[in-house]
Amino acid sequence: MSPRSERSPLLADRPRTSEDSTRRAEEEDAALHGVPVPLSPRRSAREVILFTWALLATAGVIVLAVVLQHRNSTSDTTPSPPPPPIAPGDPSAGGPYLSSKRPKRNLIFMVSDGMGPASLSLTRSFRQFTASLPADDVLTLDRHFWGTSRTRSTNSLVTDSAAGATAFSCGHKSYNGAISMLPGHKPCGTVLEAAKRKGFATGLVVTTDVTDATPACFAAHVDWRMQMDEIALQEVGVGPLGRSVDLILGGGRCHFLGNGTRGSCRADDVDVVRVAREKFGWGFKGDRAGFDELRMGKNVSLPMLGLFADADVPFEIDRRNMADVYPSLSEMAATALTALEKATRDSDKGFFLMIEGSRIDHAGHFNDPAAQVREVLEYDKTFKTVLDFLEKSDTEGVLVATSDHETGGLATAWQAPNELPVYNWHPSVLAKANASAEYCAFLLHQHIAAAPVESERSLIDWINAELVVARLGITDALEAELSALATNPAAANPIFSRMVSTRARIGWSTHGHSAVDVNIYSSGGKAAEKIRGNVENTDVGRFLSEYLDVDVDEITRELEDKFQGREVVELKSEGVAEVSGHPVEWLRDARI
Amino acid sequence: MSPRSERSPLLADRPRTSEDSTRRAEEEDAALHGVPVPLSPRRSAREVILFTWALLATAGVIVLAVVLQHRNSTSDTTPSPPPPPIAPGDPSAGGPYLSSKRPKRNLIFMVSDGMGPASLSLTRSFRQFTASLPADDVLTLDRHFWGTSRTRSTNSLVTDSAAGATAFSCGHKSYNGAISMLPGHKPCGTVLEAAKRKGFATGLVVTTDVTDATPACFAAHVDWRMQMDEIALQEVGVGPLGRSVDLILGGGRCHFLGNGTRGSCRADDVDVVRVAREKFGWGFKGDRAGFDELRMGKNVSLPMLGLFADADVPFEIDRRNMADVYPSLSEMAATALTALEKATRDSDKGFFLMIEGSRIDHAGHFNDPAAQVREVLEYDKTFKTVLDFLEKSDTEGVLVATSDHETGGLATAWQAPNELPVYNWHPSVLAKANASAEYCAFLLHQHIAAAPVESERSLIDWINAELVVARLGITDALEAELSALATNPAAANPIFSRMVSTRARIGWSTHGHSAVDVNIYSSGGKAAEKIRGNVENTDVGRFLSEYLDVDVDEITRELEDKFQGREVVELKSEGVAEVSGHPVEWLRDARI
Repeated sequence: MSPRSERSPLLADRPRTSEDSTRRAEEEDAALHGVPVPLSPRRSAREVILFTWALLATAGVIVLAVVLQHRNSTSDTTPSPPPPPIAPGDPSAGGPYLSSKRPKRNLIFMVSDGMGPASLSLTRSFRQFTASLPADDVLTLDRHFWGTSRTRSTNSLVTDSAAGATAFSCGHKSYNGAISMLPGHKPCGTVLEAAKRKGFATGLVVTTDVTDATPACFAAHVDWRMQMDEIALQEVGVGPLGRSVDLILGGGRCHFLGNGTRGSCRADDVDVVRVAREKFGWGFKGDRAGFDELRMGKNVSLPMLGLFADADVPFEIDRRNMADVYPSLSEMAATALTALEKATRDSDKGFFLMIEGSRIDHAGHFNDPAAQVREVLEYDKTFKTVLDFLEKSDTEGVLVATSDHETGGLATAWQAPNELPVYNWHPSVLAKANASAEYCAFLLHQHIAAAPVESERSLIDWINAELVVARLGITDALEAELSALATNPAAANPIFSRMVSTRARIGWSTHGHSAVDVNIYSSGGKAAEKIRGNVENTDVGRFLSEYLDVDVDEITRELEDKFQGREVVELKSEGVAEVSGHPVEWLRDARI
Repeated sequence: MSPRSERSPLLADRPRTSEDSTRRAEEEDAALHGVPVPLSPRRSAREVILFTWALLATAGVIVLAVVLQHRNSTSDTTPSPPPPPIAPGDPSAGGPYLSSKRPKRNLIFMVSDGMGPASLSLTRSFRQFTASLPADDVLTLDRHFWGTSRTRSTNSLVTDSAAGATAFSCGHKSYNGAISMLPGHKPCGTVLEAAKRKGFATGLVVTTDVTDATPACFAAHVDWRMQMDEIALQEVGVGPLGRSVDLILGGGRCHFLGNGTRGSCRADDVDVVRVAREKFGWGFKGDRAGFDELRMGKNVSLPMLGLFADADVPFEIDRRNMADVYPSLSEMAATALTALEKATRDSDKGFFLMIEGSRIDHAGHFNDPAAQVREVLEYDKTFKTVLDFLEKSDTEGVLVATSDHETGGLATAWQAPNELPVYNWHPSVLAKANASAEYCAFLLHQHIAAAPVESERSLIDWINAELVVARLGITDALEAELSALATNPAAANPIFSRMVSTRARIGWSTHGHSAVDVNIYSSGGKAAEKIRGNVENTDVGRFLSEYLDVDVDEITRELEDKFQGREVVELKSEGVAEVSGHPVEWLRDARI
């Protein structure tokens, strides 16, 4: 083909000549496939015009398509990771989520257990105060606010974490206490199990027992959340579906050690760690040194079980003084992200990771605002860690974060009895505390155990100097408060909490949960539009499996088959606290 | 031009012939202007191909442009009124809000005073219970959830309604108590004043005194919210800017009558109604009969002042039994919408209307959940009324609704002293009540005034039968509760409220406000994207004036000039309740 003369103006009217049929065929082919071909110097002005028109229109299509794609990916006004390129024919570009072909995807689901809306303004103002930030400074979470979730369960207006997490894992409402069981005690397949079956890598990261309700709901099926011995076994693979989890990081080591072993809290003598290692090939890390060996995820062989506390990892307000013993939520999350990304590097599937800020809920149960603000800040930091990961990752991914329920009936205002209401609350009080009420209660119990015959006066003085002043930063304790601590140390945790709360003018209505809608946060993007606004918690659950394009119903059918004829576990006691799964002890004593 | 042969395949290779130059010129012209011309049967296969390509690409441009435009207008996933057609060159289609040319627009701004996030799950579950609706039934508000607003003021983490409404009206944070005054007691122009100056019609609809903080902030400038005598005068036009409001509907008649008149609560003898009529041409309606004469807005001459209660319109739970005396919020809102639409029919400007569900806040102050759920339901109904109006209206319009703050520290869970937490609350208790605590207290005071020498036993029996059982639906009153009512009738309102709340297991932490972020709702659309997510209350305020394209700063400069040299009003007492503007009396006695 002859090169186009540089001096021939594109729109010049030139005499028409016959065409080379080969070239014509090439052009037809090119036109049919939408690919422009170089102009021949022999074409007519009309052709040149048509070609120009076609070229301009095509350019218009491309520009508009790019703009549209950009709008689809960035309809959030808050900063979000850049959208991944959409492969040609990707049905997710505009259609329903369920389809057979998907580009590789990672999904990170974060749960702020027990964090209601009031925790956000509490923590935001606390941070502004302590870091001398302007009044319009916000948390990373605030910048990614996405909507709110309705939380009621099938048998109560106030859900517990088990029914709440079942809504996320299975996408169905259930009864309080249910670990991925539906009403009638029928098992339901979870997004994690379905993801594993489809080839995704899977992980669970928490700061409480890894057998607690939220993580349990992703990888176990039992009638009641208190069946933790059973949950531990199912989580490592001893269950109807075999092993579904690749990485577990958190607390709750005691459920994995046989009751002949020091530090065990099992009713039986099953050594779950040994079962996990020998039968399912798990690696195991049981302390901070073990965690450090993982090298923030760069040195992890899956499956990997990391249990870094007997039960709960201490509250962040306490843990930061014990960082040589316990890793933080953000450290564990970063480790999991790196490990799972590495493990799926050569896979056409990505990973599903659930990260729980578990103990925001515990601070709510204890009504301890000084502990809660540090838990929420650490959760916010972890959220940022995940955002940064998604931004750097070559793989498409979404972060969705929400709570299962609110805990404590927290209110950022409290009216003292027989006083008029005050229109303020005081973050300075929370800033002065350097320990949780739980830890102060632990220290008190330890002190009493070491010196059981101390006089009440001496005990009161020790409590005031060593705990109230030195730990809580309270210098105006009432004699009645100190006396209550000395005479009723079993109630020390709620008494310490109340001393902080009333001085900060923070109110609580319960040591249990409440029914307020909870917030949803997201890294944004088109896919998450489905759960924008006010949605049911089950909508969040269904989004998880739809985003990964995995079939939880298939798992449900398999589970139903395998559970046929099994005996439903009946509750031994109908006590409310037991049904809701929070053992009564935590109200009475410290757990560290 | 000859018609194209129907049998000629578009891509057939046909022998080339010479062309008619006129036709060619036409085609060039058409191509340059992007207009397709009918095909001639004489054109070459290459031209046909090029033409087809151009046509397909052009079609692509059109389709994509339409899709893009649609996405811009409907990025909300919740149902919303159809987007108005965007006029060619309308800068709002993608650019900043401020511009000189705008199509006619209406803006309705709703304020749910004191409604925090917990009020929504409270009211939603109450409605599900009373109307036997499924567990996933939602309020109209829920379907239009848009985001949340941060509420702190310049001098406190807990705002009052005055600083809250100043954030909305002026777009700036200020001190608690400020009526469109900024720190340093400098006046700030409001969206309503700027809208009026630009030719919009303006209206205020409330269920409390029209001189109360929220409505006052749109049309008055005083140092402290308690200066209601002054606010009444400014609202009708006696002030630095003259008359800015066209329509006022609500309560608070007593501030408009001179203190020589029955029903007045003014300190002076100014007859504000007479001033309004004679100096500023206001029409006046002072009772339900007057309201009915307005014929739901079809018979309104502006300016129109409608004051249908001495002070507050009764709580909806009580008002529905006095509908012959007081109009409802939804009736007043519908009246205002019709009147303002009619008044702007021939204008190139639309209207700005503020509608406040004022007494959600009062139910929160009283800690009365039975009153609050009915207030929120009426607010939800009013929201629906506005949505329906926008859907039917030919004029572009937006509805934005939010709260100024939360009131009461409401929690949908309450733990009784010395009991374990219960994971539930009971809407049935609220459903049984047919009167507010405020109204029961009023009846008690009325009864005592009529029979002051009654024995305590007899009074207790009357209270139990006539108020507790007959009005609140409580059949298990404790002797201690009844005795407290009989011996301390001044505290009847909080005692009645507590009797309902504890039985329903609803918690409250204060009779004042709290700092939790409040919800934002919207009819949706591109314009409101700016306030989606978590924003400052001042962002909502700035959106209002930006949407209407009006300049509040110009009004501010004018006000600053006119206020030069004036004396700042000092507070007589630094009492917290007085600063926050809620007179202490409401805690002690009923106001009906």
